[in-house]
Formats: sequence, structure tokens, C-alpha cells
Amino acid sequence: MSTINRRTLIKASPLAVAGAGAMLASQGSAEAKQAGPAKRRDRYGDWSAVTYLPLVSQKQYKENEKAVRAKPYAAHLDADLSVPSLAAAKIASGPLDPSQVLTPSAENLNRLIDPAYKTPDNGYAVLGDQMAYAQSRIVMPNVTTEMFKWWFTWHPIEKERYMLWFPQSHIDNSVEDPARLANSALSYEKRLFGNPNRIQEWIGPTRLDSIIHFTDPGELGFDTDKLRRLGFTASASGVCYATPMPDIPFTLMVHVARDTKAGMELLSRYWIGSHPDLARFHNAEKAPDMLRHIGFNEQVAELTAYEMSVHDLTEWNHLARILPALHKAFS
Amino acid sequence: MSTINRRTLIKASPLAVAGAGAMLASQGSAEAKQAGPAKRRDRYGDWSAVTYLPLVSQKQYKENEKAVRAKPYAAHLDADLSVPSLAAAKIASGPLDPSQVLTPSAENLNRLIDPAYKTPDNGYAVLGDQMAYAQSRIVMPNVTTEMFKWWFTWHPIEKERYMLWFPQSHIDNSVEDPARLANSALSYEKRLFGNPNRIQEWIGPTRLDSIIHFTDPGELGFDTDKLRRLGFTASASGVCYATPMPDIPFTLMVHVARDTKAGMELLSRYWIGSHPDLARFHNAEKAPDMLRHIGFNEQVAELTAYEMSVHDLTEWNHLARILPALHKAFS
Repeated sequence: MSTINRRTLIKASPLAVAGAGAMLASQGSAEAKQAGPAKRRDRYGDWSAVTYLPLVSQKQYKENEKAVRAKPYAAHLDADLSVPSLAAAKIASGPLDPSQVLTPSAENLNRLIDPAYKTPDNGYAVLGDQMAYAQSRIVMPNVTTEMFKWWFTWHPIEKERYMLWFPQSHIDNSVEDPARLANSALSYEKRLFGNPNRIQEWIGPTRLDSIIHFTDPGELGFDTDKLRRLGFTASASGVCYATPMPDIPFTLMVHVARDTKAGMELLSRYWIGSHPDLARFHNAEKAPDMLRHIGFNEQVAELTAYEMSVHDLTEWNHLARILPALHKAFS
Repeated sequence: MSTINRRTLIKASPLAVAGAGAMLASQGSAEAKQAGPAKRRDRYGDWSAVTYLPLVSQKQYKENEKAVRAKPYAAHLDADLSVPSLAAAKIASGPLDPSQVLTPSAENLNRLIDPAYKTPDNGYAVLGDQMAYAQSRIVMPNVTTEMFKWWFTWHPIEKERYMLWFPQSHIDNSVEDPARLANSALSYEKRLFGNPNRIQEWIGPTRLDSIIHFTDPGELGFDTDKLRRLGFTASASGVCYATPMPDIPFTLMVHVARDTKAGMELLSRYWIGSHPDLARFHNAEKAPDMLRHIGFNEQVAELTAYEMSVHDLTEWNHLARILPALHKAFS
């Protein structure tokens, strides 16, 4: 599998995503070569409208629209989702080879931020029989880490703010200590970390009810000196717990961000389920039985991984669009 | 609900599909009006890459690519799907109001081709508790009804030809009397009609195994004089039967086409399930019990309707892209 340098803004080669179309044009018979039409990738641009929404999201949007209408930020509710065409095509072309995907060890957290580490910008995979995995790297023009940090202290205060982020899929959001989250006398880290955030959202057709414990990246396994050295000045990473089983960790989620000349660069990772490399988190040994109990098998993991990848692609690109104006108006 | 004149090639109003985004810009508070960012529909173009493919389709493509590779038309296998952005957004904005949708009576078949009848180009709905419904109107530049008729006599001869049409979702295809279908001494109608076509394909995540009985449109209820008068010179319409229950009709499918200055205009309708207006078809009274038996309820109907609408939008726009070159090379 070809890798894409995630340090520079390159378009993936059309060959890499056109798949059979391009391959067959060079591997077919002479006859076929003569008969073959020109491929028309130019039919669509760099950005595509999102062409599919689960029924639950179609319905959720109607509820969310009503809820947001009375809010001062109502004008920022934008139903018009779009994603980079090549990223969507890359994900829809199938999973990454699991052998090329990083497992959730502390060592690997530090590897994924390493300039020498190469991996496709977007992708999903199944790791073993109990883990869904998704990865992304998104560069957001006109967005800064300052806006990103503001967003994570501002949006959990009202569920309608959370709805702006993904108007068709976000349902509800609340935080344990809203006063602390809103206290601008404290640092970003003091406001967000150790202040559990309960979210409810649709991941594809499935409702996720989860508690995110945003945590200092050092506690998750990152070398904080290395993060700092490489310019990653913002993190909204943590361990997630299913709301009905709030003491068993089932997801390690990474969002680390830095400012670049092209805009904010965000690296995201989702390790959902159970894996030996999560043993450093309290009660991780209880996850395999819990997952078996709720029917989380390899097939569910595969669907979760792809849907998580699509969800991530959609919500972060949407936030990138709306965040500069929101920040300007409400920060 | 606003209607779109289907006789002319107009873009749907951005207001109609932007939904809350545009509405709220005019209904929000004065504060919000000032704060509101410009909507960025220009982020994507008229055409979008298909941004979501069910896992089964991602896997199916790998099989199909192998199967088509050795065929003389291998160069025409194109994995690069795209759809009109506004049509996809329209479908993803929710179902049509069932009261505005035509039921499958003979009278309504003639109404849908009537120049005075207005309806959105694309949409889906649930009619009662046992019927999924999808509609589309697609104008295909550079495509003619002659190519369309050629396609329906050419592609069912080999399943790999059928795969070209929707490389990620078409599985298998066969026809009862291939010699008759291939006999160019006969008319299109004599070759296709009364020559059952078994298809297997993914409609969203669900495998459909069905037998299509393509039939003279007059037998389905169309006024053939009216069709002719309005220029509809091609039909690939018929009644469909689930392969395991091949004597119970469960779908009325309409594809009627005519040549226009802008290209071939195709009107498509899918009435899937059971409805009193299908009583004119033999054994239709057996459908309700059969559908109950297989668990086809209102919820399944809704999913089927949306998935059918997405499938239709994808496969016909893809065929429109590949058909002119295929026809030129193989007719």
C-alpha cells in the first residue's frame, strides 16, 4: 500500500484512489486500451457534498434545527456538509492493512507524531477481533489552535452549540463542572481535563452514548516534551467510557493539533474496543467481557471503524468551515 | 413543499436544499444576522464524488474488478462514482410528503409522464405500511434512447457487463433466453419483454435477489399512444419478483426515456412492497402476507426507499457517463 506523506499538503495520486479504473487502463488488452474512454475524475472538484446521510441523521437534523433556532448563534447552523473528495474516496476503497496500523501503545502515540512516520491521511481498520480503528490528518485553513481550544471550552456548555459541529448527527452534550469549563481565569487544560464530557451522537446509524475523560496527553502516554518540540500546542485527547458502564474504558481518542502556515493541522486517532496495548488504563481488563456481552465482534468493529472514519471526516471538515466565524463572533 | 419543474433543466434553489442554514439566516435574531458567516455552498461543485459506500460494496468492488479484468471491455470499468450534488442533498434532506407522491395506479403512470405534472426530480417516500417508493428524473447529455435500448439487450448477457453499470454494487445477472436477447434480427421489445432477467445487487447494505419481468408499458398501465405522443420511445419497465417467491409481484419499476436536446431524459419510479393500486397484477393479493412474513414493515420500507433512491441516483448517473463510449466500442 502506498503511503502519503502527512507532513505536506499533497493530493493523493489519482492512481491511488481511482483503483481499477486507472489500473485497467494500463493492464487491459490492446483492444481495451484503444476502446477505453478518458477517465472523468474532473467531473467533480476537490470538495464534494456529503452524498449519503443515515435516516436517523436526516430526522435528527429536523430536531436540531428547531433547538438551535432561538440561540444567538443560530445563523451559524449550516446543514451544508462537504468533505475532500479524495479523502472520502480513499476511505470508501476499503480498510487499511492492519499490519500497517499503529496499535494504541504509549510508544505508538509518540510514533504517530514523529516526522519520520508516514501513513495515509485517512483510513480505517480492524485490529484483532475487538477493536475498531480510524485515523485522520486534516489541515484547516484559517483555523488556529487558539480557536480549537476555545471551541472545547465553549461548546460543551450548551447542547445546541454541540449541534453546530455536526448538525445531522450530534444529539446531546453536557459536562460535569460547567462553571470550571467556563472559567476563563483558568488555563485551557485546567478547564477541560478531569472534567468529564458526556456526549450522545449518531455514528452512522448507531447511537453512541459516551463519557469522554479529556486528559493531559502525558497521562495517556505522550512524551509531552516531544509534543511541545514538534509544535503540538493543543490536545483534546482522552479515554472514553460507555455511559451505561462508566468505569470500563473502551476507547482511546487522540486529537492533537498545531499551527502551520497552511492552517491548523489536526491528527486524530480512535481506538475503539479492547486491545492489550490499552492495559495501562484502569479497568481495561474488564473491557473484553463487556464488549462480548454487548455483541461487539469483528463485524461490528469493521462497521464501527468505517462509520467512525466517515463521521470524523465529516465533522472536522465541517467544524473547520464554521469555526473562524463562530470564534470571531462569540469568543 | 416546493416543486421543481421537471421539464426544464433548472437547478433547485439553494434555499430548498440548504434548509435551516439559509432559513435561519433570515429568521435569526438581529445579533445572529450580524454574526452569521456567508454560507459556502461554493465549497463543492455541481458534481460530487460519492462520499459513502457500504462495507459490502467496498468488498464487492474487489471481486468485480477481478472478474472484469479479463474482458474486452475491462477499460470501461470505472470505480469513480459521482452524482449531482443538489440531487444527493435533496434526498438526504428527508422523505417526500407521501400525500404528494403518486401511488402505482395505471392512471398515475400516465400522470407522471404528463407535461402538466410537477414533482421534484429526486426523492423517496413510504406509502402506507408496506411500500417503499423512490423517484428520479435524470437528463443524460450525450446519451440517446438508442444507446439505452442497446444497453438493455447487451448487458444481461454477461454478469461482468452488468458490473460496469455499478461496479461496487452489482453482483450477478442472467436472462432466461440469452439467444433471443442477443438476436439483433428482432426488435428491442421482442428481445427484452417476456424474457425474465434475474439480478443480484446490493441496495445499500442489503442484498437484493430479484427477477425483473420487463414488459410492454401498455400492459403495465401506460397509455402507449400518450407515451409515443410525448416522445417516450424507450421503456425498460416491469414487475419484479423476489427470487425465492417468484410468483408474487413485489415491485413495479418504471424506466421510460426520450431523446431531448439536452440528452436522454429518463423518468424512473420504484414502488416496492404491496399497495392496493397493484391489484391489477396477478397474485398481488399474496404480497401483504409474504412481506409480513419476511419482516418488511414501515421501518424497513423507509430504509429501502432511501437506499433505493441513493442507488438509482448513483447507478444511472454512472451509466450516463460510461454508456456513450461503451456503445461506440461494442454496439
